[in-house]
Amino acid sequence: MKALVISSGLQLKEVSLKRREGDAIVSIRRAGICGTDIAIAKGDYKVREPLILGHELFGILKEVAFQSNLKGGDRVVSEINVYCNSCFFCKNGMKTHCRNIETLGISRDGGFAEELSVPVRNLHKIPDSIKDEEAPFIEPLAAAIQLTKMAKVKEGESVLILGSGRLGLLIQQVIRLARPSLIAVMSRNAKKLEIAKRFGADKTFFTSDKNKCLDLVNGNGFDHVIEATGNEEGLSLAIDMVRPRGIIHVKSTHGLPANLDITKIVVKEVRIQGSRCGPFKEAIELLADRKVRVRSLISATYPLDDFKEAFEVAASGQAIKVQFTTE
Amino acid sequence: MKALVISSGLQLKEVSLKRREGDAIVSIRRAGICGTDIAIAKGDYKVREPLILGHELFGILKEVAFQSNLKGGDRVVSEINVYCNSCFFCKNGMKTHCRNIETLGISRDGGFAEELSVPVRNLHKIPDSIKDEEAPFIEPLAAAIQLTKMAKVKEGESVLILGSGRLGLLIQQVIRLARPSLIAVMSRNAKKLEIAKRFGADKTFFTSDKNKCLDLVNGNGFDHVIEATGNEEGLSLAIDMVRPRGIIHVKSTHGLPANLDITKIVVKEVRIQGSRCGPFKEAIELLADRKVRVRSLISATYPLDDFKEAFEVAASGQAIKVQFTTE
Repeated sequence: MKALVISSGLQLKEVSLKRREGDAIVSIRRAGICGTDIAIAKGDYKVREPLILGHELFGILKEVAFQSNLKGGDRVVSEINVYCNSCFFCKNGMKTHCRNIETLGISRDGGFAEELSVPVRNLHKIPDSIKDEEAPFIEPLAAAIQLTKMAKVKEGESVLILGSGRLGLLIQQVIRLARPSLIAVMSRNAKKLEIAKRFGADKTFFTSDKNKCLDLVNGNGFDHVIEATGNEEGLSLAIDMVRPRGIIHVKSTHGLPANLDITKIVVKEVRIQGSRCGPFKEAIELLADRKVRVRSLISATYPLDDFKEAFEVAASGQAIKVQFTTE
Repeated sequence: MKALVISSGLQLKEVSLKRREGDAIVSIRRAGICGTDIAIAKGDYKVREPLILGHELFGILKEVAFQSNLKGGDRVVSEINVYCNSCFFCKNGMKTHCRNIETLGISRDGGFAEELSVPVRNLHKIPDSIKDEEAPFIEPLAAAIQLTKMAKVKEGESVLILGSGRLGLLIQQVIRLARPSLIAVMSRNAKKLEIAKRFGADKTFFTSDKNKCLDLVNGNGFDHVIEATGNEEGLSLAIDMVRPRGIIHVKSTHGLPANLDITKIVVKEVRIQGSRCGPFKEAIELLADRKVRVRSLISATYPLDDFKEAFEVAASGQAIKVQFTTE
């Protein structure tokens, strides 16, 4: 089958599917390019090579290895973490931190390919109301939801989102459901700020307009600042924009070292909270209930053969979401 | 009066006390040198000059400007933040984050001097059971308590303290009161590890023995890691040592930029919690009730005249607490 393999750079290769014992096989139909994919392709985020990239996946279940609630032909999305179910973390409700974890497209072959081998317990059947092109958003939407699990945003609080890209626009919609008093968005990119407004941001600012943005909250800082810039300067900016004892949610996995003023974290008594993979069921429900809009986030769609252009467009800063399709 | 002034380096000067309207006057008897003082003296932590350093203070109340529960002759310690009582933060229970804050020895003249001018509301009378040389520990002890206010340590949790210096040894004693399952301490300095053991650390390790230390918690990481190294590498080490979804408490205010791998914070879903100034009343109680030992932390005592040696010894890594005394 065709697959996008990272092996001294990103290459389209003809490979045979490595089916693991007991795994289900999914025919991939749609897959989204995420910031992590770009960081891996650039070499900033190191992985063990060779590796098939891709973890925002939708496809059709082809075969299940054993009895399951799912059957061939089901429309499915796959959770990205394959866990052992027996380590300390699996036994303590933290399966996404399994000691023996393998993560699709990061430490185990992913789905920028024609087929995917994955344990059937990773799969979720999705309702027909969720369209094919919407389904690959379930994984990043779950990640957006996860930030509210690690540190809640409460009704009436003020929120600043740094970055209005792929993830920022999903986060913005998830946060809105918590009924904050205010959602402000900062970006370097005028076009992205326009999109943020269209998706319901109350106020938008260029990254350079720090003081104007702080004026919104009387110079006191925001209750929550969400770092979704995907670059190494975002967290420093977040520390300046959050209020004393406020919460910074970090989501960027660019793989790059960042320079921070730790003294400010102490003096402001700030909380920096990382969060990563989230609940698929809730993401599926939000999408099925039309509480989150994702279709208009798709900037372009490519076959795997055009992977070079797909990654270029995705990394350009002009596009929001780029997808691969087999259609 | 004599005062230690930072003004293009640290200097002992003859200055007149700038008494502010309504302030009380305290005759300083004992004052402790803190990591922040050292960072300011080195020029790493920038302040507006000229400034009298010193914020771990004990003295005798000389004059009160107006009616107060305190009277001349009272033995007192001073909170370090002078606040306005009218801004957003003062009105919302966050006086230590007052918008108009002035901090003794950092943004307002401190107490490495013969006398201190400070609002009477900053002063706490201390019981006779707390000795003169113990009293300057109340401020850093309150700061140690504050970390448990910003993020609680619960009974049965595992704790790793990075750094076994002035602050680390106070933190160790405060944390012990929460009844953790385990307190491990890491330091580069064998002598300090011995002291940590003497103060009740369950296990001690050299900073280089990361894996041995992690073996203590079956390689899963610690529930809490407390960063009290006072250097810019401590936080990266903390991120490696904490368990997924664990809490890192940061206390170091060295003023230096630190290089961090933000991706690890996200992937491990770690919480980094800053904390700073704490509750004086609780610190006074802990000391009066002999729940915390501080006298044996004093490595050396100097008159202000010998400030050069005092700062050299305090910064040497061989000493724990160095105090100034007028006795």
